[in-house]
Amino acid sequence: VVSERGKLRVAVIGQGFMGRAHSFGWARAAALEGSRLSPVLAVLCGRDRQALAVHAARYGFAGWSDDWAEVVRRDDVDLVDICTPGASHAEIALAALAAGKHVLCEKPLANTIDEAGQLAAAAERAASNGVFATVGFNYRRVPAVAMARGLIERGRVGTIRHVRAVYLQDWLVDPSFPLTWRLDRGEAGSGALGDLLAHVVDLVRFLSGEEIDEVVSLLETFVSERPLAASGVGLSATAGEAQATGRVTVDDACAVLARLHGGALATLEATRVAPGRKNALVIELNGSKGSLRFDLERLNELELYEVGAPMDGFSRVLVTNPSDPYLDQWWPPGHILGWEHSFVHEFEDLMAAIAERRQPEPSFFDGFVTQAVLDAVSRSAASRSWTTVDRGSKLAG
Amino acid sequence: VVSERGKLRVAVIGQGFMGRAHSFGWARAAALEGSRLSPVLAVLCGRDRQALAVHAARYGFAGWSDDWAEVVRRDDVDLVDICTPGASHAEIALAALAAGKHVLCEKPLANTIDEAGQLAAAAERAASNGVFATVGFNYRRVPAVAMARGLIERGRVGTIRHVRAVYLQDWLVDPSFPLTWRLDRGEAGSGALGDLLAHVVDLVRFLSGEEIDEVVSLLETFVSERPLAASGVGLSATAGEAQATGRVTVDDACAVLARLHGGALATLEATRVAPGRKNALVIELNGSKGSLRFDLERLNELELYEVGAPMDGFSRVLVTNPSDPYLDQWWPPGHILGWEHSFVHEFEDLMAAIAERRQPEPSFFDGFVTQAVLDAVSRSAASRSWTTVDRGSKLAG
Amino acid sequence: VVSERGKLRVAVIGQGFMGRAHSFGWARAAALEGSRLSPVLAVLCGRDRQALAVHAARYGFAGWSDDWAEVVRRDDVDLVDICTPGASHAEIALAALAAGKHVLCEKPLANTIDEAGQLAAAAERAASNGVFATVGFNYRRVPAVAMARGLIERGRVGTIRHVRAVYLQDWLVDPSFPLTWRLDRGEAGSGALGDLLAHVVDLVRFLSGEEIDEVVSLLETFVSERPLAASGVGLSATAGEAQATGRVTVDDACAVLARLHGGALATLEATRVAPGRKNALVIELNGSKGSLRFDLERLNELELYEVGAPMDGFSRVLVTNPSDPYLDQWWPPGHILGWEHSFVHEFEDLMAAIAERRQPEPSFFDGFVTQAVLDAVSRSAASRSWTTVDRGSKLAG
Amino acid sequence: VVSERGKLRVAVIGQGFMGRAHSFGWARAAALEGSRLSPVLAVLCGRDRQALAVHAARYGFAGWSDDWAEVVRRDDVDLVDICTPGASHAEIALAALAAGKHVLCEKPLANTIDEAGQLAAAAERAASNGVFATVGFNYRRVPAVAMARGLIERGRVGTIRHVRAVYLQDWLVDPSFPLTWRLDRGEAGSGALGDLLAHVVDLVRFLSGEEIDEVVSLLETFVSERPLAASGVGLSATAGEAQATGRVTVDDACAVLARLHGGALATLEATRVAPGRKNALVIELNGSKGSLRFDLERLNELELYEVGAPMDGFSRVLVTNPSDPYLDQWWPPGHILGWEHSFVHEFEDLMAAIAERRQPEPSFFDGFVTQAVLDAVSRSAASRSWTTVDRGSKLAG
Repeated sequence: VVSERGKLRVAVIGQGFMGRAHSFGWARAAALEGSRLSPVLAVLCGRDRQALAVHAARYGFAGWSDDWAEVVRRDDVDLVDICTPGASHAEIALAALAAGKHVLCEKPLANTIDEAGQLAAAAERAASNGVFATVGFNYRRVPAVAMARGLIERGRVGTIRHVRAVYLQDWLVDPSFPLTWRLDRGEAGSGALGDLLAHVVDLVRFLSGEEIDEVVSLLETFVSERPLAASGVGLSATAGEAQATGRVTVDDACAVLARLHGGALATLEATRVAPGRKNALVIELNGSKGSLRFDLERLNELELYEVGAPMDGFSRVLVTNPSDPYLDQWWPPGHILGWEHSFVHEFEDLMAAIAERRQPEPSFFDGFVTQAVLDAVSRSAASRSWTTVDRGSKLAG
Repeated sequence: VVSERGKLRVAVIGQGFMGRAHSFGWARAAALEGSRLSPVLAVLCGRDRQALAVHAARYGFAGWSDDWAEVVRRDDVDLVDICTPGASHAEIALAALAAGKHVLCEKPLANTIDEAGQLAAAAERAASNGVFATVGFNYRRVPAVAMARGLIERGRVGTIRHVRAVYLQDWLVDPSFPLTWRLDRGEAGSGALGDLLAHVVDLVRFLSGEEIDEVVSLLETFVSERPLAASGVGLSATAGEAQATGRVTVDDACAVLARLHGGALATLEATRVAPGRKNALVIELNGSKGSLRFDLERLNELELYEVGAPMDGFSRVLVTNPSDPYLDQWWPPGHILGWEHSFVHEFEDLMAAIAERRQPEPSFFDGFVTQAVLDAVSRSAASRSWTTVDRGSKLAG
Repeated sequence: VVSERGKLRVAVIGQGFMGRAHSFGWARAAALEGSRLSPVLAVLCGRDRQALAVHAARYGFAGWSDDWAEVVRRDDVDLVDICTPGASHAEIALAALAAGKHVLCEKPLANTIDEAGQLAAAAERAASNGVFATVGFNYRRVPAVAMARGLIERGRVGTIRHVRAVYLQDWLVDPSFPLTWRLDRGEAGSGALGDLLAHVVDLVRFLSGEEIDEVVSLLETFVSERPLAASGVGLSATAGEAQATGRVTVDDACAVLARLHGGALATLEATRVAPGRKNALVIELNGSKGSLRFDLERLNELELYEVGAPMDGFSRVLVTNPSDPYLDQWWPPGHILGWEHSFVHEFEDLMAAIAERRQPEPSFFDGFVTQAVLDAVSRSAASRSWTTVDRGSKLAG
Repeated sequence: VVSERGKLRVAVIGQGFMGRAHSFGWARAAALEGSRLSPVLAVLCGRDRQALAVHAARYGFAGWSDDWAEVVRRDDVDLVDICTPGASHAEIALAALAAGKHVLCEKPLANTIDEAGQLAAAAERAASNGVFATVGFNYRRVPAVAMARGLIERGRVGTIRHVRAVYLQDWLVDPSFPLTWRLDRGEAGSGALGDLLAHVVDLVRFLSGEEIDEVVSLLETFVSERPLAASGVGLSATAGEAQATGRVTVDDACAVLARLHGGALATLEATRVAPGRKNALVIELNGSKGSLRFDLERLNELELYEVGAPMDGFSRVLVTNPSDPYLDQWWPPGHILGWEHSFVHEFEDLMAAIAERRQPEPSFFDGFVTQAVLDAVSRSAASRSWTTVDRGSKLAG
């Protein structure tokens, strides 16, 4: 399913925050040296036709469409990149896989554990036909995170004993921020849980190489009534002038106590009401031989402590050397990368996997497992009890 | 019970880590301007007679004794300062209060909730006779912490929604660190729980001004067998040459999910196996109007974020101005204080309360409540369930 | 000289480090909303024909050429973007201006003050015909730097009294790093001086809004002999196997004491032999009302202190809000930008100026003045004396 | 000249900022284990008799006097500790040495180079009689600084190539801060130069192990007229109500470009008008094999980078381990020290030298050399030229 001459023709579904980020990422990835495939921006797909024409031209797409069902079947598309809200992921992804297209689906994989299970099963079937699916946990591709994973893999921090991971934002602190689709359970499935804790969970799994076995949790909505949105969507919405308000149906925040399979104690947290924390995905792992710390607000840096090292302190490493993960394509040391570059690396890895006909990571099954953890978090909050993560029963397609 | 001429004659019980820290603190407090009492180092009390003579001379005590029961009854002692391991707190404190002496008792107040309840009740009775008791949560007296409390009290961060508090150390990472009294449940009562989480709990209560209502927790001992101690005690012990080992009977670490009375979500954690974290008591609070962050390893600093401030960022405040809490006694701005100076402030506040015949803070009841939280943490770990903090039933003397 | 339909057809001369950075920047700038011109990658120009074909395709250029003299005269080019080593800047820029093309010239403007003076004079003449020239001090366009300039302009830090500015790198610490064109006076003109101190000087001028009036300096080459380069060019060169070495003819480092026109004391420094400092362009300004600090290794952050602010500390501002300079085109708060994005902003500002037929900043005269400061630094190091910056006599075309 | 039984009887001259700091330091030093001498607070000496009685009692002195000339001759004094303003240093120190007393003299050693030369010569003569003199550069005794010196001595950073050292304070930013003796050339000799740059110069010499050979400098007084002081002295003075003002006769700030003997480039700076910088003595050294950074506002930390270390980053070391310099006397790791503890270490080293009848460091000759650098800085500012540090001609007694 890769077209002749090493091109990978991409259809991006969605033209919001993520649609833009992916579009720029694919364009930038086209300039990478050494990649076996070269991405082509084939189609931009969305609902607002007027915006589509403008965006498609601006981002360099060959064409655009407002009919995703048609797009996923087109002959001139090799990969469908799904950047829509979670509620539509399953339908689009299943159709794309059925049409024999590779699929990249933004996280969370789905809004429900049932849908996620269906998707994982469908992806497994597709893979046996050489059609691959992956879920967009882009933070795995931040060089400092990749370096951290490498250090853990090589045993540099020993057995993991503690994980402390939070994703803190503050855009809902303002009570006049309006109701948008992200605050509507029907569209978004959940709040900080699916939007932010999903990243936390994936990062814990990726870095530790371990599963989260059981959780106990709290979910909270601190501001339960908000003005209806007058205009705009997503993160740039503004409140209407009238006093109409509506009910927030998702969580503002969640906090979780968890046990990893290897026995480590973990605290996980996600919130959109932490004043001053703009995008603070911070994770610290303490092992029997060392510690690691990463903060997305300073994503070019990694802190490492090793027991018995010459100096008894944390090293702050600026992960920008050409020998560091993904960095051979970029700039001399110290010329830092931005957030959006994580997508370039994600696409680079995805193209390599497709070219080599192997399963890209993270798979839909990884997306399903993250969803299973989120599901356990939800159930635990409701039942007020320790809850085992169910990685199996929902999986049958 | 204060001697003529504004002196406060102090007996320090214990000559270990805490005994030394308190002795230096009292000596330094004697030089404070403006305090209504002047402390006098009357007696140093301990078990090792040879060390006692040396220490008493060196720290400037008028005398020494190896019989605490005699000391707490002496006429020339106004205040008994208990710096022994937790197992002996109750007996000494009750005897001292019975003898009409003010009591300062190191934390944790006791090793069991029953003893803590007894102590709180005894302290309440003594207070009605003008004899006061306090528990040594010295971190309340770090200037940056006192400043943080003031800011919260004045509403600068609004309603607290999130608390994230950890106390991380790493001295038990080395599996050859020997068994000392701190790793023996009989002596120490618990491990990181009573030693470190006690500080976390008190700090959360002090800063937030709220009670911790319920908890769910994990306790873990990662290194369960250790060499027997050959020599030395406490934190400076060294392992014996022989291969004899013994069982660690306390926790290395604990992790807690909690709900504050006002609804805030809290994660609390304490561990002695976090490589590279030497004394990292770090707390962050997020409120509806701002955020605060404090780290004991940089105890002269406080970070504050305020919604709507001119600059959208955290201020790093070096809390060393003469107008800052406790700082009028010290140096020009930027000349930082050390860890041990928290005791000077603790004693300063205690002397002021005694001079003014009012209850010093934190009271034994505060010590009891902290113990009640630790007790709930222990029970929750055992029952694997959400556990309500019982602030009442154990209190009856 | 702007083609119909609001396109700006760009020829990039040079395919090295800077040629690549500019190429990506132009491509990314094409997606900007609200810009009145839309850049078109018309021609990539360089010496290595084989590489050119590959690069042109990969970066999205319509064509390529190895003849710059032809390129600057082509009808289908509106702007010539010069990314070659300094020695060739003057010849290419003069030809391009003579051909009526807008010119963007990488810094330093030229290798000699005479050439820089010629260029400034030529640019002034061209401007009167609506043909504009600008020099590529991209760090003016880092959002945090632009925010800093705004704060200073609005008087938030008062009168500048101290400037402390350094640009520290470490790629020449290794004595086996080979001789490349950057270490050859004939090609590069100078070492850390023209490469790094040029940025320092421009940043000081831009932020303070003041001229550097006089300087006294030291220049030093710590490693004077290096192996000849076997392969590669620029920063990625590797040493040959043979033992052949050559003489380094540029400075490794320079240090400068200076006086600003308004009376401020300044220390300026640039070096390529500061171990651990990868790209540390750090500037602190102290004024009568406040202080500012910026570090390129954390280019999304700005530190500000204001006398009399509610909290007596530096605010660390993450400059990623949509309301911050240049940020309306990017991501939600906390999603940081990378080094290369400074070029996108540079091109955005340049296109706006061209569209509005006004002089873009910094002008060739700005480039000349920076060169005049570097020239004074060189002369001062040779004469071992305070040296006045000559901003006039070399200017006549 | 050490009394029987290993006591060192100390007379402290001066009861201001430094007199207090030293008094507390001596008291704290008395509790040190393992020191061969035990300090005794014999006499506190000053001008204000009423304050003297109070201070002597509070700080624990056996007696007090307002006649320094008598004190330095008393039989029951072994060491004279001079904490008065610089103008009186020479007279007191010479008298004390003549009387056969060891002398500790606060920095700067003297207000003029001639006096400093006299003192160094007198100290050398006294040393041959077993009477020792030292100058109070206490920052050599900060554990992190001592660790840094050790690392440099053992070659861990290689040959020093760059030194960047500043001492920044902000207490003169407020133009209404009154004229005190510290702003009067007659009393203080100079401003930031003698007060702050003296520390910078000593630290550069101590850490690098090299002399500063030549300097070029700027001195500036930004606020030249200030209200007369109504009450108080030193740093806590307050302005009078009347509008009377007087002329500031010392520098607010100085900036220096210097060359070290080994060829390193150095920038040195001291100022009292850097808003937000409270006590920022910050030094960074770059060598051929590594870099070191220290900041007095975080005096328990040291940052080290080593070329070729396993991780390519700066280690932040919390210098609080018992195995670190001076730390065996203090607390478990992570329990940080304060500014005033540097004096305890200073006195500990001084007592060890006296007990072992060897010259303590830094000697009066070191004090003289620092003064010679300050003198060269002053002359360079006046002559506007590179000025050689004269370490010889003024030395003859």
